[in-house]
Amino acid sequence: MGAALALSERGRGRTFPNPNVGCVIVKDDRVVGRGWTQPGGRPHAEGMALLEAGDAARGATAFVTLEPCAHPSPRGPACAPSLAEAGIKRVVAALGDPDPRTCGRGFHALRSAGVVVIEDVCADDARRAMAGFLTRQHFGRPHVTLKLAVSLDGCIALANGESRWITGEAARAHVHVERARHDAILVGRGTFEADAPKLDVRLAGLEERSPLRVLLSTQSRHPREGGGPSPALTHLREDEQMDSRLRGNDEWVLINTLDKIATLPANHILVEGGAQTAASFLKADLVDRLVLYTAPILIGGKPALDDLGLTELSLAHGRWDLTESRMLGVDRLQVYERTACLPA
Amino acid sequence: MGAALALSERGRGRTFPNPNVGCVIVKDDRVVGRGWTQPGGRPHAEGMALLEAGDAARGATAFVTLEPCAHPSPRGPACAPSLAEAGIKRVVAALGDPDPRTCGRGFHALRSAGVVVIEDVCADDARRAMAGFLTRQHFGRPHVTLKLAVSLDGCIALANGESRWITGEAARAHVHVERARHDAILVGRGTFEADAPKLDVRLAGLEERSPLRVLLSTQSRHPREGGGPSPALTHLREDEQMDSRLRGNDEWVLINTLDKIATLPANHILVEGGAQTAASFLKADLVDRLVLYTAPILIGGKPALDDLGLTELSLAHGRWDLTESRMLGVDRLQVYERTACLPA
Repeated sequence: MGAALALSERGRGRTFPNPNVGCVIVKDDRVVGRGWTQPGGRPHAEGMALLEAGDAARGATAFVTLEPCAHPSPRGPACAPSLAEAGIKRVVAALGDPDPRTCGRGFHALRSAGVVVIEDVCADDARRAMAGFLTRQHFGRPHVTLKLAVSLDGCIALANGESRWITGEAARAHVHVERARHDAILVGRGTFEADAPKLDVRLAGLEERSPLRVLLSTQSRHPREGGGPSPALTHLREDEQMDSRLRGNDEWVLINTLDKIATLPANHILVEGGAQTAASFLKADLVDRLVLYTAPILIGGKPALDDLGLTELSLAHGRWDLTESRMLGVDRLQVYERTACLPA
Repeated sequence: MGAALALSERGRGRTFPNPNVGCVIVKDDRVVGRGWTQPGGRPHAEGMALLEAGDAARGATAFVTLEPCAHPSPRGPACAPSLAEAGIKRVVAALGDPDPRTCGRGFHALRSAGVVVIEDVCADDARRAMAGFLTRQHFGRPHVTLKLAVSLDGCIALANGESRWITGEAARAHVHVERARHDAILVGRGTFEADAPKLDVRLAGLEERSPLRVLLSTQSRHPREGGGPSPALTHLREDEQMDSRLRGNDEWVLINTLDKIATLPANHILVEGGAQTAASFLKADLVDRLVLYTAPILIGGKPALDDLGLTELSLAHGRWDLTESRMLGVDRLQVYERTACLPA
């Protein structure tokens, strides 16, 4: 299942509206097929693994990170019957699929066809790997990661605005890995106008994974209108017109309220700044995961967050679980997840 | 030497104007004497260890964290001749004493009396243990630790001023251990007036180690004059009148400029707040050690530091070395030391 979960990561950030599933088919202790959900959601992981396995699927075990789908679609066959027809004799699955079109029907179809089904293997890891799809299913919106890169005293820039760089090269490279794992990146108007960020993935081999760029702006005025240096973008489209073809172009999607994130073609979105945007997501309780890079410097400059409007400190406690902590050069990476982020 | 260094910690925060030295006397693989500098600086560690060892000192090895003193004083005998007279045949020392009255004369006196001297054993650890005395010798001022207890976004209070509590019980208990290791604790006027902190050591068995309390205030007006709730203190004395008897009383020492810290009867001082005071010490490059407690909360409130006035980020980098990092409950403790804090 570890291998299937690793494969599922290959699809992360590119499978909307489908989950990023991983699948490994094993026969006689040898891996005969591997698959992961392809960009745009098709083919499914199981289809890809079955294609690779060919006749070797007969009598084999399939490890899948999510319950195989039971509903046929114009875009491709349903996986549960495909697995059974290919002669898979056992399916080991991490999670049931909450999608109402499957939701137990996949397992039922397999068992009805005589396939042995084992459920709930590495379920927590699978929940984390497919957090975006699950958040969509449960809350009708993408999974939101907030990235903050701060000094020890929680600043994101000097008082004079200088922000390059707070963190070192290793931490900045890690940000690019995070970007590649998200369907969309969002910044607020202040960051957009001050930094004209490219927000692309500048890592060899991952350039084509640059996510959709989203600008959150509650102002009606067109950004940059009437002056200022022109950023490297051609134009902004209203969200009604957005399209996954926008990825990799110099185009941005504009949304004017937080709840519009639900309309983005994205399972996972990364909020990159600045202080006002970060605070607005936190105030709306829309942050599921926090990726914090802390540099060993003190600057006494611009705070990472605008006022969250808390009236007592007890409201701030108990909301974040530390799930990862390590050094990236001299900087510390800490990842926090919202306490009880998803229903178990 | 590890045992001698551990003993030296017992004196830390109470030996001004003397260094906090530790001494262990070993004969035939058995510890026959242990000593550490007593409150106020006398007796010295070596005298205490020799007293315990008695006749067993003859032919024994003494491990000392600092070169034994060579200068007789009205307050007690010089340690180098005492060790030789007691029959110690070998002295293992961590550091030479930079005090110009000793500075090599201690080792010379021992060798002249036929004692074998081994120098430079665990020198870095000894430099850290006696940082206060060494900072006094080299820079004519106490060693300064800045304590900050912050949220992940670097805040020390909500926007409405509430600051109890950012960190949990384990971190707050650790603050009391830090207090016990310092001769004096300093706060600024804002913290003094807002919180009326007791700044004592509230740990069983360590109550009598409560340090001298110091208020840094550049205003001529007497704090609390003309209104506001009265804090639990009797009065403030000008620094000219201060006295180590003030420890443990409800009295405070008032200083009106940063450079007056040199006049405090202290080897180690702990700066506890607030944002303006912390920033003024950092701007004056007077912070040798940073003790940072970080709670896993986000608040968007009052920043830990006022503007440090940096004109470029490169000036902030490379100034702090991480020397300790661990969890205290859900909070993280990190200790940083100023890069090249003391001459080697």
